[in-house]
Amino acid sequence: MNYRMICRLLCAVLRIVAAFMVPAALISLYYHEMRTCYSFLITIGLMLLLSCFSLIWKPKKKTFYAREGFVLASLSWVMMSVLGALPFVFSGTIPHFVDALFETTSGFTTTGASIVTDFSQLTHGILYWRSFTHWLGGMGVLVFLLSLESFASGAGDSIHIMRAESPGPQVNKLVPHTIGSARILYGMYIGMTLVMLVLLLLGGENWEQAITTAMGTAGTGGFAISPESMADKSPYIQWVVGIFMMLFGVNFGIYYLMLQRSWKKIFRNEELLTYLGIFIVATAAITICIYPQYGFVDGLRQSFFQVSSIATSTGFASADFNLWPQFARTLLVMLMLSGACAGSTGGGFKISRVLILLKGLRHEIRRSLHPNTISSVHMDGDKVSKETVTNTYAYLVAYCLIIMISVLILSFDPFTFEENVTAEIACLNNIGPGLGAVGPTGSYAGYSVLSKLILSVNMLLGRLEIFPILILFVPGVWKKARN
Amino acid sequence: MNYRMICRLLCAVLRIVAAFMVPAALISLYYHEMRTCYSFLITIGLMLLLSCFSLIWKPKKKTFYAREGFVLASLSWVMMSVLGALPFVFSGTIPHFVDALFETTSGFTTTGASIVTDFSQLTHGILYWRSFTHWLGGMGVLVFLLSLESFASGAGDSIHIMRAESPGPQVNKLVPHTIGSARILYGMYIGMTLVMLVLLLLGGENWEQAITTAMGTAGTGGFAISPESMADKSPYIQWVVGIFMMLFGVNFGIYYLMLQRSWKKIFRNEELLTYLGIFIVATAAITICIYPQYGFVDGLRQSFFQVSSIATSTGFASADFNLWPQFARTLLVMLMLSGACAGSTGGGFKISRVLILLKGLRHEIRRSLHPNTISSVHMDGDKVSKETVTNTYAYLVAYCLIIMISVLILSFDPFTFEENVTAEIACLNNIGPGLGAVGPTGSYAGYSVLSKLILSVNMLLGRLEIFPILILFVPGVWKKARN
Repeated sequence: MNYRMICRLLCAVLRIVAAFMVPAALISLYYHEMRTCYSFLITIGLMLLLSCFSLIWKPKKKTFYAREGFVLASLSWVMMSVLGALPFVFSGTIPHFVDALFETTSGFTTTGASIVTDFSQLTHGILYWRSFTHWLGGMGVLVFLLSLESFASGAGDSIHIMRAESPGPQVNKLVPHTIGSARILYGMYIGMTLVMLVLLLLGGENWEQAITTAMGTAGTGGFAISPESMADKSPYIQWVVGIFMMLFGVNFGIYYLMLQRSWKKIFRNEELLTYLGIFIVATAAITICIYPQYGFVDGLRQSFFQVSSIATSTGFASADFNLWPQFARTLLVMLMLSGACAGSTGGGFKISRVLILLKGLRHEIRRSLHPNTISSVHMDGDKVSKETVTNTYAYLVAYCLIIMISVLILSFDPFTFEENVTAEIACLNNIGPGLGAVGPTGSYAGYSVLSKLILSVNMLLGRLEIFPILILFVPGVWKKARN
Repeated sequence: MNYRMICRLLCAVLRIVAAFMVPAALISLYYHEMRTCYSFLITIGLMLLLSCFSLIWKPKKKTFYAREGFVLASLSWVMMSVLGALPFVFSGTIPHFVDALFETTSGFTTTGASIVTDFSQLTHGILYWRSFTHWLGGMGVLVFLLSLESFASGAGDSIHIMRAESPGPQVNKLVPHTIGSARILYGMYIGMTLVMLVLLLLGGENWEQAITTAMGTAGTGGFAISPESMADKSPYIQWVVGIFMMLFGVNFGIYYLMLQRSWKKIFRNEELLTYLGIFIVATAAITICIYPQYGFVDGLRQSFFQVSSIATSTGFASADFNLWPQFARTLLVMLMLSGACAGSTGGGFKISRVLILLKGLRHEIRRSLHPNTISSVHMDGDKVSKETVTNTYAYLVAYCLIIMISVLILSFDPFTFEENVTAEIACLNNIGPGLGAVGPTGSYAGYSVLSKLILSVNMLLGRLEIFPILILFVPGVWKKARN
């Protein structure tokens, strides 16, 4: 393990997060929220101080393998969540550290599960920071780091960093260089966020509402700045948010193909087609389900908004779907499980994984009938490697195991089975709201400290896709590098 | 596909089931339940008539491959469930056919989920038949057929029949000949049932109680002959039933090893050790949980009984665990999922599959750290073939998929999320009771016809371990034999 190199990059992450905290401090200053402003400044100072480690402990060699990538990703995200929580505590807006940690982890991992019950306690600076964590977490801090750093320009090393943070079973670079890929990704991400911002401003939102909503949507996070979430917005705003949630749930590689006008590849992308198919079927089914409550026009909007919000793992609410018929509620839980596309800012199991598993199952059934046939799983016309298929299977095992253990621990708290199961699914898949007390009008405030910590770990497991975190507990990972 | 051979064996199954219905008819006659007696006689006549097909349509060749085995198993079990339901309908005890089909499928698959709300309507003959379906379903009708038939004495063909019906990821014969293995299995099964019967009679049960309880325990079924299930029995009876449930959840290969005094192999069996470990941990945890309600002596008995009942997929109830703390209830749901040992009469996912999946996950994590290392999954000191590991993974995928689709369909009915999820898990894993309205004091009577059919299909999927049923829907299975 190349500890010095990991230390250097962790310090770089610290400096990035510190730089991104400056606007939050300035917003607090603008609104004369001095205690919040000082909280940000103290945290920035602390982060810069910690980042000086890289000046003392310089790397001797630049070797960087898959395991270094995993360890770096895990440690970066834990560090960001812990340090990002400090302004909440220092400013007194969320005084208990575990609560603040839950909220910040929920922000960075783009979950959007909140323990806030009284929004009047949150200052403008804190509201901005809370939504900003979604934006940075959506595309990832390490991808941002790669778009700046040039530590491994030519070598294949930096791909291990990108792989560890980017979602999906197979991570491909858009262009041969990792740095170039990272820059294109962030370029498209910033561009789309700005377009959305303009559309929100045109719809009559003020700057604060527009910026926080755009950041919460871009990262598919789901933190709102009012207890109503998106329920009190105009139909125009709800359609804009609904459509942009859907867009941010698409693999960004698709947008790059669009820029290159490779339409043929786009229309052959099975994950995209499945994603759109899920949208059409689920929206239609729920519209029929809630038609008696809302009528067609409102019903379609509510249905599309909620499908988009849940399927992309955002978690904004345009209505209290707790009150919808059981079928609609259950369908939303199923959408929580499948998740968005790989390579998007969305969370969940990822549709490409679901496709690989279904194709693997079909393949296995065929093989049990004709044991001697040699065949393999294909996706978008290409063969999927056996390693990827096995890895996806193992991912499912880890995923089920985590859900079972977590639900068991959550069941110590006085919540129902439905609440515990959906809270767990909503956190592991980075959705936000579940059903019942943790539904769109509720909060996670009632859970015990232990449960909040377990759910926070779940959010990290979901965002980093399990293996980078699990690997920290494998004996032998922490050994010195072998060459 | 060798249709004629399948037809011949299906007719043999019909004759066996008809023969096993004779005692039920005699019991009805003894109690002067004439309508019930006639119902059995009519059904027996119908089955014998149908079985004459084999006289007309004789097999030309004896070739019998895996797919023939799967199709035979699926069709046998569907046929048994449909025809076994007729006495309920004819006798008027369960007048609606779908209800009767649900009850019979639940019986043969050793689920024990019931739609009966008024036990006074069931006659003695029907009660006997209902419990007998558990006993036959537990070890399997095709295994019974193999112990009689000599259609393929020397060839390896008959192993495909055994494989299709026997539970677990790897089915091994006890002795080189399939017929010998089947005879040993049924010999041990009958012996253990008789020992239990004697112990129940010694505890003061009458013949009817003792026989139905022994058959329900042996098959790990769970139908009781009173609404109290086992709650009104003496502590002695509860201990006997609890211990025998545990014994019938063990791989019968272990008992054969005991007869051979191969103690070393037994103590190295990882599935057995895990099974016992689960019993100890779960019983201890639940005893602590319910200690305030029951005290130590009663609490330990209730806890052990319920763990044994759920972990082995039997489903008898010694108490209404709906009223236990949420942690105890959730732990019982987890035990439902893991299930009993492979090669036992118990249902569920099977502990050996869980072990293979966990080992596969560990293996995959190691491989992601050291991609070039060649290693494999081991069990009981032997290498598990890659095919078995992949097959187990695919099994998990199918299992999750079935749960999701079924819960979605169940959610049309006016039940809670907890009730729908646990009903589905309880039926797919052949347990019986779930939580809430389908709990130990409830019944499945409230579900719609569609839901009852879906749950019946789930029971069959669980008992035959998914693939034999899924294969029926693969295009190409129904083609004529290739040589």
